[in-house]
Amino acid sequence: TLGRIMENIGYYNGTFAPMEQLSIPALDRGVYFGDGVYEALRVERHRFFALKEHLSRLRDSLAFLRIAFPMTDEALTAILQEAADRVDSDSQQLYFQVTRATAMRTHSFPESGEANLLVFSRGVPLADLTDYRRVVMLADTRWGHCNIKSLNLIPSVLAAQAAKERGCSEAVFHRDGVVSECSSSNLLLLKDGVLRTAPADERILPGVTRAHFLMIARELGVPVDETAFTLEEMLDADELMITSTSAHGLPVGFVDDKPVCGRDEALLRKLQKAYREFFWSSIEANA
Amino acid sequence: TLGRIMENIGYYNGTFAPMEQLSIPALDRGVYFGDGVYEALRVERHRFFALKEHLSRLRDSLAFLRIAFPMTDEALTAILQEAADRVDSDSQQLYFQVTRATAMRTHSFPESGEANLLVFSRGVPLADLTDYRRVVMLADTRWGHCNIKSLNLIPSVLAAQAAKERGCSEAVFHRDGVVSECSSSNLLLLKDGVLRTAPADERILPGVTRAHFLMIARELGVPVDETAFTLEEMLDADELMITSTSAHGLPVGFVDDKPVCGRDEALLRKLQKAYREFFWSSIEANA
Repeated sequence: TLGRIMENIGYYNGTFAPMEQLSIPALDRGVYFGDGVYEALRVERHRFFALKEHLSRLRDSLAFLRIAFPMTDEALTAILQEAADRVDSDSQQLYFQVTRATAMRTHSFPESGEANLLVFSRGVPLADLTDYRRVVMLADTRWGHCNIKSLNLIPSVLAAQAAKERGCSEAVFHRDGVVSECSSSNLLLLKDGVLRTAPADERILPGVTRAHFLMIARELGVPVDETAFTLEEMLDADELMITSTSAHGLPVGFVDDKPVCGRDEALLRKLQKAYREFFWSSIEANA
Repeated sequence: TLGRIMENIGYYNGTFAPMEQLSIPALDRGVYFGDGVYEALRVERHRFFALKEHLSRLRDSLAFLRIAFPMTDEALTAILQEAADRVDSDSQQLYFQVTRATAMRTHSFPESGEANLLVFSRGVPLADLTDYRRVVMLADTRWGHCNIKSLNLIPSVLAAQAAKERGCSEAVFHRDGVVSECSSSNLLLLKDGVLRTAPADERILPGVTRAHFLMIARELGVPVDETAFTLEEMLDADELMITSTSAHGLPVGFVDDKPVCGRDEALLRKLQKAYREFFWSSIEANA
């Protein structure tokens, strides 16, 4: 058995090492083009949550970028499991990325060279879902394919930093006043008993947690509406929630320092609770 | 003296190695966020062309991303010169990128950690300027800050590949029919004796070669027009030219396999010749 003695682990093309000691070739096209895609998973008690959904989305992202990644899901899963098993923590965030190839720098695809797999795993506790978080509003100047989970993340980096500097957890992106999503999470709102979120088109990432909240709402008889909404509609919501793999569903109570929401906390808490139950029963089922 | 025995050289934070052997930490934020900027220079006979302009644009890109890079231009130049001097070729393409830091993956800026400098240099001959090239037209779905020379280059990668697969040298980007630029070059046209190119706003990279062609045109008494133009105006041009650091100014004679241009070759050749003379006299002046 593998000793679970590590605080974190990195993996690159067959080699495991602590993240701080792991090296990759400077000619990996991820380094100078960001030419790759990624996924991030929750791992509880060394068991994956929603692995199938994340692997499916990875294949979609790879197909969009036309990156050939012949490794099977089974072989990839075995590597991810070994990475998780090498880390001591019972509550991990597991990150993995696939880049096109290692090659001399030319924009078009290289004639030869195989895809590279990089994995990071480390202990990251589940977020506390109780407190209402703060968000800022920012113009969405990202590219036209935000449904692809690519490594080209400068806009999300700048938005996350802008939010942090204003004491906020997230930045809400909008295009001409129409809300898309946040820098690394989707945005959901409750209004008059309906759960609403932007449609899963090219302006948002189709979040796994977003899809699970929609599924859970339907199961609870809560109507779901996937039509775009404006900043004004967002500010007029009964409740707001940001959803992501790492944060599950966090309530939002302040937008640009202005208090909002708090008008349907019963339904908000009911959805959060149902999600957490679904999460833990899925983890149990992976035993 | 340094032996000029290498076909190419890489450099990362103090270490020189052949590009194929150079490694960088997996936690460099360039690897998983593309969180950095770059420049590319021509080096002839181990002398730089337009170094000052490239360093100035690097500082602009760094400022936009709020990357602190305390290294002076003099210290950076010394490293770039050593990289060039270690490579045998008399005609090199020198690439360098600066990433924010090496740190655990969180979107917001890390609390500590210094910027990383990566340099590549290798022999790449100057392009032949004679033959008319082919280009394709593609929708510009890039982000809203194309004036920044960032490492988030997936759209340019996909466009360059699409062009290559159709036997073309470049892809011309347009937003709703208004031409911006190409995947790694600017687009200039000649019409009725006027040199025209898209304005240097957030939709194009302010190319150093583009600026030099505008300067040369003015010196030759050729009127210059920096107002946006449509695909229709592009197809109706007397001549088209793509400009970049590596390719100087290449004539374009076919768009999506349709022959265009060839109606003012005398002026096209005059501008090309004046640019090459300016280029070589600048190299001489750097002796």
